[in-house]
Amino acid sequence: MEEKMFLYWGSGSLPCWRVMIALEEKGFGGYPNKLIEFSKEEHKTEEIIKLNPRGQVPTFRDGDIVVNESNAICQYLETRYKNHGTRLIPDDPKEMAAVLQKMYESSNIQENIVSGVVYYQWRNKLEERDEKVFEERLQKARDELSRWEKHLEQCKTGFIANTTAFSMADVYFYPYVAQMDRFRMDLLKYPNIKAYYERLKNHPSFVSTYPPHWKDTEKPDLLSRI
Amino acid sequence: MEEKMFLYWGSGSLPCWRVMIALEEKGFGGYPNKLIEFSKEEHKTEEIIKLNPRGQVPTFRDGDIVVNESNAICQYLETRYKNHGTRLIPDDPKEMAAVLQKMYESSNIQENIVSGVVYYQWRNKLEERDEKVFEERLQKARDELSRWEKHLEQCKTGFIANTTAFSMADVYFYPYVAQMDRFRMDLLKYPNIKAYYERLKNHPSFVSTYPPHWKDTEKPDLLSRI
Repeated sequence: MEEKMFLYWGSGSLPCWRVMIALEEKGFGGYPNKLIEFSKEEHKTEEIIKLNPRGQVPTFRDGDIVVNESNAICQYLETRYKNHGTRLIPDDPKEMAAVLQKMYESSNIQENIVSGVVYYQWRNKLEERDEKVFEERLQKARDELSRWEKHLEQCKTGFIANTTAFSMADVYFYPYVAQMDRFRMDLLKYPNIKAYYERLKNHPSFVSTYPPHWKDTEKPDLLSRI
Repeated sequence: MEEKMFLYWGSGSLPCWRVMIALEEKGFGGYPNKLIEFSKEEHKTEEIIKLNPRGQVPTFRDGDIVVNESNAICQYLETRYKNHGTRLIPDDPKEMAAVLQKMYESSNIQENIVSGVVYYQWRNKLEERDEKVFEERLQKARDELSRWEKHLEQCKTGFIANTTAFSMADVYFYPYVAQMDRFRMDLLKYPNIKAYYERLKNHPSFVSTYPPHWKDTEKPDLLSRI
């Protein structure tokens, strides 16, 4: 089955990581793939552009079907291969709603922490940064984390959507937390988020898809001020 | 069925509009609802906060199930009520993939046109605007539109995902085009987008959910420079 699939991906890209976890969970581990180097602009090569005119990864092919947006790929895999591998979106309406809610709500982390704080530092050199603006962004990031901390405090099952089993919401949420750790955020300030991270750190599909360059390069200090 | 549903929504919010179209298409028209006034900060009232701690609309309830992110609500309605009303995500894998791709790819319009150009003008008074920055943003918006224009040129069916029938991709894409028209974009520059707009303008669920305050207020000039 998996032989007909192909994934172009970049190390450290959360949309790519999300898709790779979903592929493992759905039982397609071992699919052919190509790791592209962002620094060499390999996502802008003809090989990718012809499948994905936006020149982005993930770029995914399943036979002659091409899907490129990470949300689209995850939903495609779960819908088309519903009973293959792990069920990631439950049938029970209440659990289904909770999973979908947390999957898409996690995009606020992208906005308030990744774009708001990480990208701000990448785009503005230290001497160009407006300390007041930066502090406002850090505060938004802290507010965002407090929401998830409070939510996890009330979660009984240990999974982010409070479902009885691992779900697509964990596929979406966990990489954000691993990225916070990578960027030297002090997770001790958010004990329930830290506990979630420790609990799921050894989940097989998270381990096998962990961004390779994160393993052997120094952690950049991008979130220690949160 | 629809009596147990409830939607809080705001006029002109595209995430709300998307959900309202999906509700009509799924055959739940006539559901109880409350129009909130953004200018009065009604989305930050206790009534909403208790269902949606982020204080945002859409806030949606289906019996005792609460879902608030528009992507989550649309996927919930389509998955839970698959065979109720219009099928919005086809079973055919190729069509399914195309619909999902265009649904989520449309978020680039949010980023490059709505956030990039519209919000920039809302957040920066005319005298505070950096003309060079604004021109760069306009160019990104034009590039984004050119992608969709080129895509629509190749579409044979008249629907945005090139599917045989109306789909969730149209539910997502059409409101962006209607908003461009509202904000005085010259659609004649993009004849295939204009043709799409004219073709679907009278689609019943688009007409019945059209943002009420757009009908009787002057069109703001926010996109005429594109």
